[in-house]
Order: sequence, then C-alpha cells, then structure tokens
Amino acid sequence: MYEGGRHGGDIYRNPVELDFSVSLNPLGVPGEVRRALHRAVFHCDRYPDQRMERLRQKTGAMLGVPQGWLIFGNGASELFMAVVHGLCPKKILVPVPSFYGYEHAANAILSETPFGGKEILFYETKAEKGFVPGEDFLTLLGGDVELVFLANPNNPTGRLFERDYLIRVLDRCRDRGIVVVLDECFIEFCQGNQSLLGELEHYDRLIVVRAFTKLFSIPGVRLGYALCSNEALRQKIQRHLPEWNLSVFAQEAGSVCARQSEFVRRSADYVKGEREFLADRLNAVGVKVLSGEANFLFVHSSQPLGEMLLRRKILIRDCSNFRGLEKGYYRIAVKSRAENEILVAELRELL
Amino acid sequence: MYEGGRHGGDIYRNPVELDFSVSLNPLGVPGEVRRALHRAVFHCDRYPDQRMERLRQKTGAMLGVPQGWLIFGNGASELFMAVVHGLCPKKILVPVPSFYGYEHAANAILSETPFGGKEILFYETKAEKGFVPGEDFLTLLGGDVELVFLANPNNPTGRLFERDYLIRVLDRCRDRGIVVVLDECFIEFCQGNQSLLGELEHYDRLIVVRAFTKLFSIPGVRLGYALCSNEALRQKIQRHLPEWNLSVFAQEAGSVCARQSEFVRRSADYVKGEREFLADRLNAVGVKVLSGEANFLFVHSSQPLGEMLLRRKILIRDCSNFRGLEKGYYRIAVKSRAENEILVAELRELL
Repeated sequence: MYEGGRHGGDIYRNPVELDFSVSLNPLGVPGEVRRALHRAVFHCDRYPDQRMERLRQKTGAMLGVPQGWLIFGNGASELFMAVVHGLCPKKILVPVPSFYGYEHAANAILSETPFGGKEILFYETKAEKGFVPGEDFLTLLGGDVELVFLANPNNPTGRLFERDYLIRVLDRCRDRGIVVVLDECFIEFCQGNQSLLGELEHYDRLIVVRAFTKLFSIPGVRLGYALCSNEALRQKIQRHLPEWNLSVFAQEAGSVCARQSEFVRRSADYVKGEREFLADRLNAVGVKVLSGEANFLFVHSSQPLGEMLLRRKILIRDCSNFRGLEKGYYRIAVKSRAENEILVAELRELL
Repeated sequence: MYEGGRHGGDIYRNPVELDFSVSLNPLGVPGEVRRALHRAVFHCDRYPDQRMERLRQKTGAMLGVPQGWLIFGNGASELFMAVVHGLCPKKILVPVPSFYGYEHAANAILSETPFGGKEILFYETKAEKGFVPGEDFLTLLGGDVELVFLANPNNPTGRLFERDYLIRVLDRCRDRGIVVVLDECFIEFCQGNQSLLGELEHYDRLIVVRAFTKLFSIPGVRLGYALCSNEALRQKIQRHLPEWNLSVFAQEAGSVCARQSEFVRRSADYVKGEREFLADRLNAVGVKVLSGEANFLFVHSSQPLGEMLLRRKILIRDCSNFRGLEKGYYRIAVKSRAENEILVAELRELL
C-alpha cells in the first residue's frame, strides 16, 4: 500500500491529506509569487528570455554576487546533471546518506559506454558519528576523484558542517584540482550565516547550488541556480544546458522571489520556533529526533511509522531506501503549528 | 540597432509590436490551455509528477501510440541534447540550413575533452535545389556517422521531404545502425498526413521529436516529446534527463493540449488559407517567396527587410546567420489575417 520511491512527495500515487515527506517552507508560497505566476500565464505565448536578464539581475542583487557567476537551471537537479556532463569526472565522491539526485546525475555517465571507465565512490557516514563525514573522508579527496557532492545542511539528516571542516575540504580539493559541488538548497532555513557564498571568490573550483524550490515552496515551477567564480568552469557547465531551459513561469516567479528578503528572515525565524516545538513533541511521544537544523527533522523509530501514518493519510519520508541507511529512519518536514500539532496528536494515538 | 541572435523571438532586446520572427499558431493559445495554466498556479507548491502519468496517457491517446514510447522534455531542445548525451555519437550529420538547436546539442559533446574525437558534419543543401537534400546526402549515411538530425518540414525553409526519400533515408540508416532524429515540431501545420509516426514500429532507430510549443503557442511553458519504439534507446536518452524535468505548468497544459483535436484541425485549415494569402501578397510587393508548407514562409529579398521592418516595430527572422545561408534570406511567420495585412501594407510602403 505504501509506495516508496527515490523521493518524498509522491502524492500522485498515495492518498495523502498532510504531506510531511517534502520539506518546503511552512509559510507557503508568498502571495506576490503566486501573482507573478498568474501574470506569467499571459506571457506563455512568448519564448522565455534566453539571457534571463531580469532574473539574473535580481538574483545577483539578492545574493550580492556578480550576475555573471550565476547559472540558472530547471531545478537544481538539472544543474547537478550539467556539472556531471560538463566535467565528465573519472571518479565522483558522494558521502551518504544524502540526496538521491547526486547519484541520479552521476548515473548519466556511469557504467555505460561511451562514457566508460567512470566511477562513483560512496563514503558511508556512521550512525554513531551522527552521519557526519570525519577525518577519513578528507583522505579520500585525491587520486582519481575529480568531483565531490556535499550538502550543507545535508539531506536527510539536516546536519550542518562545521565551517572549519568545509574549509579544510575546499583547501584539499583546491590543491588536488577537485571540483566541489556544495548543495545549499536548504541553507536559508538554518540559523546564522552558514553559507559559503563568501568563499566563492577564493575557491575557483567551488560550485554552490541553490534553489527557489524549498524557500518559496514552488517545487512545481522548477528553478535552481549555481554559482561559480570560474568562467571556464561555468562555460563547461552551461554548454550542457538546453536553450530556453527556464520557462516564463520560472523567470517571473524567480524575479519576484529574489526581492522577498523580509519573507526569508521571517521564514527562518518561524522554522526555528516550529522545529524546536516539533522536536520536543516528537521526542515526548517516543519518536527519537536525531538531528535537523533546517526545515526538517531526521528521526528514528522502531515502529513502522510511515505505514502507520499513511493509514491516517499523513505522508512522511521513509528513509530506508537512502543509500547508507536502513529501516527505522524517517525524515519529517517542519510544517505550520496547526499541522505539526495534528502529526503529534496522531502519533500520540498510534504509539 | 537590429539585434540578431541564434533564434527569432528576441523581443526582450528589440522594440517590437508585431513579431513575425517566431512561428506559432496564428490562432493563439486555446482558452482551455490558459485556464489549465492558471489552475497549475494552485499546484506550484507540489512536486510535479515524475512519471507524468496523466500527460503520458493523454498524449499517447492523442497520437495513437503506446504510452511507453513517449519521453517528455522541457522543450524539444532538452530532448535533442539528451539524445546527443545518450548516444555520444562519433559523428553527427546535419543538413543545413536548419534549426540551430541541433548544432547547440551537438556542441555539448564536441571539441572538448573528455568527449574528444567527436565530429559534426554539415551537409550544405543548395539554393538552386531549393535547399533540399539530394542523392549525395544518402551517400553520407555511413562511415562514422552515428546520428542524423532531420526536420520535416525543415526550418527555415518550410520544405517537406518526399515520403519516399525519407523512407530511403530510414532504410539506409537501419542498415548502417544510424539513429535518425526526425524533428516534426511543425508538422501539424502541413496539409495531409506527412508524419512518420506510423513508421516508428518498423524502424527502431527512428526518434520522432515534437513539441506543444508551436501548435498551441506556448513557447514560454517548455514542453516537447520524443517517440521511439526501442526501449533500450529510450533508456539511454532518459538517463540524461534530470528528475522532475517537466513543471506542473507543462504537465497541466500538455494534458489539456492533447485533447484539442478540433482546434488542431481548425489550425491547419486556417494556416493553409493565410499561408496562401500571405505568399500571394508578399510576391506581389516584390518579396520573393521561395518555399513554406508550414506556418511560415521562407523568402528572399535584396533589400534589408529586417532592419526596415524593425523601424516599424515589426520583427521578422533574418536568416543570414543560419549556417548555409547568406544575406537576403528571411523567415516570416504566417499570422492572423489582420496581422498579415499590416505586414503587407508596411512592405508595400517600404519597397
């Protein structure tokens, strides 16, 4: 009955009323963004701007980076794949558990001619170390490894790296000519300035990937972006993207998202409060919260939580099919107070 | 002042009131499709269906082909590139002049390591033969050629291939293991049943590519599809597409487009009438119509038509930057009667 899959959010084949399996902003889609999307309907008969001038300008201003550093994608997933196509790395290193999208992108060039001889190396983090890469991970950064995928915070654990550790990774990768893709798709939900955007100018093999998807709750629109200070590297990636890869919807919505700084601050504050609330209550009903510094919690339970909740039409992300995890791990989105309370009440009844 | 570019439709950097440079359906966007797009705004906070079940079912039914033969793309351009990535052909053959998108896709794997040793071969059709490939083209189908791009009708000439000729191409390619990408993005605007969809079951290296873009005037939405009866080949292509490559807008709109059979018939009839009207009038004012069996005309003039018309805020497609063409060639969309009359009136004044 419970249909798993590589990702959360498969509401198309599960009877769901409350979806805790995808981690979006609990404040939802800003009204201005919805209005921008309706406005875009009136432009559906135009080719989108290939140069994405307005979106580029607004996003550059939002982030305080040169516009030229930006590469836009039809979702971050398109960018992961374009990086893999652009570099065609001999060996790709991915710490796990992590987002399946890195593996999907890597698969494009693995195992089959004509890309033969490529390899993906999974580094398994350990439960007892909180699923955080350690010193032994650093020693893998060498040899044939030419590309590393890292997420900060990581998904599904919601763990942030220590900044010093990330800098050590970057230094080592710079010395060895390894490109680092740092996925910051959830970083705006974390407290403090955890981003490495400020390091882009110092590391020309660093690619930071972000999306409007989570922060503005618009996964249906498809809009991500990558940042890199290295022009040659950007060109290698860009040439693997189709022309007009961003729809008028993505461009209109993105241009408006990029001006929502007050909403972004408010979202981070709201998520912090609800994350603490939900973590407390989950622990209280016997669901063990392991970690989570973004808008989702990584939990463990010996009960079949996913199936139990789906019978109540609530979907959470069963993480047992994440590489490096086993049965018992779940990812639960931090949603609005009312929704979080329903989840806790149902769990209190069930457990 | 006149800013060219690889494609028509750059209304973002040209002051345009009437755009004859892109070739969309003169009947515009069906109301039902616009309504579907507005409806999709309400689903922007959902991940799109990765399996595209509804769209797949409706499109399969519309075309009368097995649903499994369909691969959907974020515009046909994404599919051209996925084919190139999936096959990584040693040599790609492209008759020119033709749509720049084939070259863009090919460029992804050309000239640079790690894809080294790939080649693109341009076959130049001749003006005196109406820019139609001849017997000598057939002899090129061999050697290292592993992929051919063909468009029926071709862009910018608007020429249809003789069916017998296409079958000879397919036979020869089958014998030599060459994959044929047949771009039918404009075929619904042509008279009679010109499509080779019916041949898919007989040729397992034939990939037909189409789009909803032109027929339903929704280039801003990004939605194309490829058809192929060969599962192994489809898988090779599919693995180079990002997850969730179709937005909720593309899926909602496409599902509705696939049910507009009456609109499609009406469009072909309308285009036929206007094409003949516009061709007559253009010839009458001294713009030589060379060819055109779809919703655009391929014309020649010794005057700088593009610049002259842009001063009147009318954009046509200057084809001088098409590979295989030179100054004097233009592509002009067949639009509504009122618009076509304005164009002709302006030209009558100018020439």
